[in-house]
Amino acid sequence: MESLSAIAAGTYSLNDDSQDHINDTDNANRHSQTGHELYAASLESILAAAKRIGPLIHRTAVLTSSSIAELSGNRTFFFKCEMFQKGGSFKFRGACNAVYSISDDCIAKGVVTHSSGNHAAALALAARVRGMPAYIVIPKNTPICKLEAVKRYGGVVHLCEPSLISRERTAEAIVSQTGATFIPPYNHGAVISGQGTVALELLDQVPDLDAIVAPISGGGLLSGIVLAAKGINPQIHVIAAEPKGADDVARSKAAGQLLKCENPCTIADGLRASMGEYTWPIVRDLVDGVITVDEEEIVSAMKICYQQLKVVAEPSGAVSLAAVLSPQFTAPSSAWAGAKRVGVVLSGGNVDLEVLWKSFIPPH
Amino acid sequence: MESLSAIAAGTYSLNDDSQDHINDTDNANRHSQTGHELYAASLESILAAAKRIGPLIHRTAVLTSSSIAELSGNRTFFFKCEMFQKGGSFKFRGACNAVYSISDDCIAKGVVTHSSGNHAAALALAARVRGMPAYIVIPKNTPICKLEAVKRYGGVVHLCEPSLISRERTAEAIVSQTGATFIPPYNHGAVISGQGTVALELLDQVPDLDAIVAPISGGGLLSGIVLAAKGINPQIHVIAAEPKGADDVARSKAAGQLLKCENPCTIADGLRASMGEYTWPIVRDLVDGVITVDEEEIVSAMKICYQQLKVVAEPSGAVSLAAVLSPQFTAPSSAWAGAKRVGVVLSGGNVDLEVLWKSFIPPH
Repeated sequence: MESLSAIAAGTYSLNDDSQDHINDTDNANRHSQTGHELYAASLESILAAAKRIGPLIHRTAVLTSSSIAELSGNRTFFFKCEMFQKGGSFKFRGACNAVYSISDDCIAKGVVTHSSGNHAAALALAARVRGMPAYIVIPKNTPICKLEAVKRYGGVVHLCEPSLISRERTAEAIVSQTGATFIPPYNHGAVISGQGTVALELLDQVPDLDAIVAPISGGGLLSGIVLAAKGINPQIHVIAAEPKGADDVARSKAAGQLLKCENPCTIADGLRASMGEYTWPIVRDLVDGVITVDEEEIVSAMKICYQQLKVVAEPSGAVSLAAVLSPQFTAPSSAWAGAKRVGVVLSGGNVDLEVLWKSFIPPH
Repeated sequence: MESLSAIAAGTYSLNDDSQDHINDTDNANRHSQTGHELYAASLESILAAAKRIGPLIHRTAVLTSSSIAELSGNRTFFFKCEMFQKGGSFKFRGACNAVYSISDDCIAKGVVTHSSGNHAAALALAARVRGMPAYIVIPKNTPICKLEAVKRYGGVVHLCEPSLISRERTAEAIVSQTGATFIPPYNHGAVISGQGTVALELLDQVPDLDAIVAPISGGGLLSGIVLAAKGINPQIHVIAAEPKGADDVARSKAAGQLLKCENPCTIADGLRASMGEYTWPIVRDLVDGVITVDEEEIVSAMKICYQQLKVVAEPSGAVSLAAVLSPQFTAPSSAWAGAKRVGVVLSGGNVDLEVLWKSFIPPH
């Protein structure tokens, strides 16, 4: 992955000359945020992303529900509905920012990624919007519907063996042949900056939040959110939500070092990755805490999304709701007992109805 | 029903003295609209309703989808998502306006209706918000989940036999015993005015619409919408959408007289009622046309809501989407071929996941 990340970073050339701080390879993933360390993104790069992608993305709706509030001791939740984003998840923001950060002379060469999830479809869509080819490396065991979404958005699918080494080698071969820019799903400054626009929007829609809770996997979304939110309001709490069956963030934070996600086992298929070298320092330094939820809590949250909010949330998308309904958040002894106005990021809605329905049937 | 309607109308006493035009029995259901006939509501009564219920209702989101637009020849659809309304459908608007139009000295006596659908839950919720009892007459064969929704909102459930005569007699008995105000589901000035706030909001959110399409059953929603929309912009087209299996509106418009819905047969359980004496004249005079859709088109529209918009639409709630995707709307020869910016009211989302799932499985 290292070589591909470096290639990706090296292609940056911003349309807006005033944001030249990610305009060369060395600095592309190193922004000053707190003064004691350089991060891969910053409030400034997120504001630049918002300007760049604003006309291309949906400003997603924020929903509230008094019946869900009643489940959580008189708190008010503001649900940021990223299932309404183009492509059905927040991933379009980061993909779009990365694609539109590529210099004009590299457009014809296209972009490449390896992914079986929402990033693949989002990158294909973003590339189509900018009129450039997107080469998407997809493991052979990926569900047909995910593959079809990539094709529907005009992505050129390259099938590979279902292993990380096969995915990386296939992508590297495409880069060598085409000169395409590699856009990883999260461990990348422009992707983090794009995802951070979720928090900019949310705090514009609801300025006086006490806390924001969002799911974490590789950390692109959460590191973007925490940089934006604490850049605007240093007092705000930012909390990660992850499945117990893929709790590398909770373990990493406890250990003070980046631990990988070994043998993830969760219905939340979007939350099985591990943080990377660019997302981990941000999560380590700035995220206030991690709430882990079990599979039953995730399914219950999906059901509440369906029944109360009337929105479609995929398992990963409902993990943040599961977190704010769990005792770790609601108990009087919780560190966030004082958080009364809480932004909850519902990150995506790409789930087949059959999968949703079957997840609600208790196993026999 | 007549006696109950009269009782309902007679109890009006508006909080806002400036809106005294529905302040007595005779005028409660007769507003001047076009000059040649008095209707049960008007742009003015709808504006008054918006003022009255504004702080109590959700201003529901408007969604767009370029992938759905592609299905309909370069039109832009603006989906007014009333499944996000309190109680899960637009019905809360009318119920709330009716409940808050009752004079203070009648609060303790409560409200009553007979309904097995969204109006029952909406009225129970509206009454709870105002702190008054709600007596809801429900046929014995009503699904448990609908009954539970009424109870959850604090409604006092009175079971009756599953016939209109039993429903009416049970409701009349409750009125006699309690002095409660009868609030019918649609054939009522304050209910029509409340539902009309959908169009006020939509035209505030998207001012330059060429047309609005909404489902019709008893006509409360559509007559409110057409009064509001044409009051604001006389050039706008307002189109009714209804199932072929309950096409009394299309037949009534063709015949020029109110025809009842005989043996309705449609999955859209919210669209099986017939228009009433207050809604029919408005629909007859002001609604531009009726599009009828078959069951397959309704199910397909529900699926598109789930897969593309990521919202939960009940069958009745998706009928308007089915209409704008049908050849009756999209064909070059259609009367609305010139309508490029179209508001589509998705009226509700109260559908059990099991019902949704099973409706998508083709019958064997």
